Amino acid sequence: MPTLIPSDSTVPAPLLVVGSVAFDNVITPQAEQERILGGAASYCSFAASYYTQVRMVGVVGNDFGDADLDRLRARGIDLDGVKLDDSGPTFFWKGKYHENFNRRDTLDIRLNVFENFRPDLPSSYQDSSFVLLGNIHPALQMHVLDQLSGESFVLADTIDLWIETEREALLALIQKVSLFVINDSEAEELTGESNVVLAGEKLLQMGPKSVIIKKGEHGAILFHKDGMFALPAYPVTQLHDPTGAGDSFAGALIGRLASRNRTDFGAIKEAMLFATCTASLTVEAFGCDRLESAGHSEIEDRVSTLQKLISVA
Amino acid sequence: MPTLIPSDSTVPAPLLVVGSVAFDNVITPQAEQERILGGAASYCSFAASYYTQVRMVGVVGNDFGDADLDRLRARGIDLDGVKLDDSGPTFFWKGKYHENFNRRDTLDIRLNVFENFRPDLPSSYQDSSFVLLGNIHPALQMHVLDQLSGESFVLADTIDLWIETEREALLALIQKVSLFVINDSEAEELTGESNVVLAGEKLLQMGPKSVIIKKGEHGAILFHKDGMFALPAYPVTQLHDPTGAGDSFAGALIGRLASRNRTDFGAIKEAMLFATCTASLTVEAFGCDRLESAGHSEIEDRVSTLQKLISVA
Repeated sequence: MPTLIPSDSTVPAPLLVVGSVAFDNVITPQAEQERILGGAASYCSFAASYYTQVRMVGVVGNDFGDADLDRLRARGIDLDGVKLDDSGPTFFWKGKYHENFNRRDTLDIRLNVFENFRPDLPSSYQDSSFVLLGNIHPALQMHVLDQLSGESFVLADTIDLWIETEREALLALIQKVSLFVINDSEAEELTGESNVVLAGEKLLQMGPKSVIIKKGEHGAILFHKDGMFALPAYPVTQLHDPTGAGDSFAGALIGRLASRNRTDFGAIKEAMLFATCTASLTVEAFGCDRLESAGHSEIEDRVSTLQKLISVA
Repeated sequence: MPTLIPSDSTVPAPLLVVGSVAFDNVITPQAEQERILGGAASYCSFAASYYTQVRMVGVVGNDFGDADLDRLRARGIDLDGVKLDDSGPTFFWKGKYHENFNRRDTLDIRLNVFENFRPDLPSSYQDSSFVLLGNIHPALQMHVLDQLSGESFVLADTIDLWIETEREALLALIQKVSLFVINDSEAEELTGESNVVLAGEKLLQMGPKSVIIKKGEHGAILFHKDGMFALPAYPVTQLHDPTGAGDSFAGALIGRLASRNRTDFGAIKEAMLFATCTASLTVEAFGCDRLESAGHSEIEDRVSTLQKLISVA
């Protein structure tokens, strides 16, 4: 029976999460919702908060309220690294998903205070041994690494924008990361390889210690010097809003590793089960709502279900 | 260590395979080949021949030579049910795959002697306890079932053509089958459900004892009253010709079940590993070439690799 709380005497390591905080307006084929608390750092932090202490770094604007902060605080997230910039509103994104959620359009995007965001770490965060770099500009991701005082296990995510516009900076960054997480279309864009197995092998040769290629409803594949691991997705039947699924996956994945203070091949494989199940909650409601309201036992139940789903015996 | 030959004293049951035999001209982004021995019955039989005695039912025309028959005989396939119709040539198909193999066009199709094909079973085949109904007209598939003398485990495949033109006959057929195998786009077409989990559940409600939805490079999902099972595809890096992959999957799957004389949930899951690995060989060369030349140990090695690929521990 999988449990979120390690049964041995392991002391969970704290996790540093760096990324955007946003308000999103989301339109789906079924519904529409405004002013959703989102952004990579929010999803990553909510997801990771089930596993370990999260230290969050981001920026919010003058429209960010105590109620929003309280949602994060309620999950025990340390907000010392979240800067309030009252010169303007919070990063805003508006998007629309098309039928079957297989395509989305950005209808509006306003960087607002995020435009001048520079992730300077509070000194108390600089010893973080687990670090999640959300999909911000690769030069900013590198700036975070430069402030770390010791050896860290670093997970980095990216988006197609940086592959297209900041390829060199991105290639420099991924040489320094422990686990590079990317989706299948981005992996093809970065490597020029449409075969996901070959794309994963090429990415490994680019320098990261390990790579996960996410395939949405088709699961994810881990590439590691000790082997490959393919995991189907959790069988979601109530898809309401896929926004933040990848960030939730990344947050739960490294949160689980930090909670066990382990980073080996077996630990990453095991953490992928928790990551997949945690992300499956995110997509069942708008924003972080479902993720936030789920309890430990709900995640553990899903991990049990997923284990059965992939078990041959 | 997986082995093709059961280690216990189980006597493999013979397998009846019914379907088309064809000559194919195939054009891929890399190459082109003519007069490839193909058709569902050929791929199914070659694949199943690694596991058990195959009884093949089909029709060939006046262009079908001894060399072609010898290829099938060399795999120990019983050809008593293959009729030679010298009134015309063998079923012919010409197709072209586009970049990345994600789409194919039929350039030419000539039914020839297949147009009047009626699968009448030799009396010695009527006691077959394992039956594979290739993707022929559902009324012909039903005609095979009507000739069986006892209880059989029946696997049926179909294609989009019958979903579009013979829906009622297809729905009548699948109520009688033990395992209905269909790809994801056909499953959506038949059920109207784009979510693969919901589509699988709907298909189960239509009457078959179990259902497998194939997702190509993304693997396959089994729906069964005892549970679900999701299996990633074997990590193919040398894709040359996907023709016959689904037929090879079906042939190896039921061949494996027949070889163990088992049809329970666990046996179907285990057989899916062999099916995936056998189909992975087919796509590495034109036609049945790679499948035909592979030995037992090559399939067993792939099953070992696949087991490691999906193993969390």
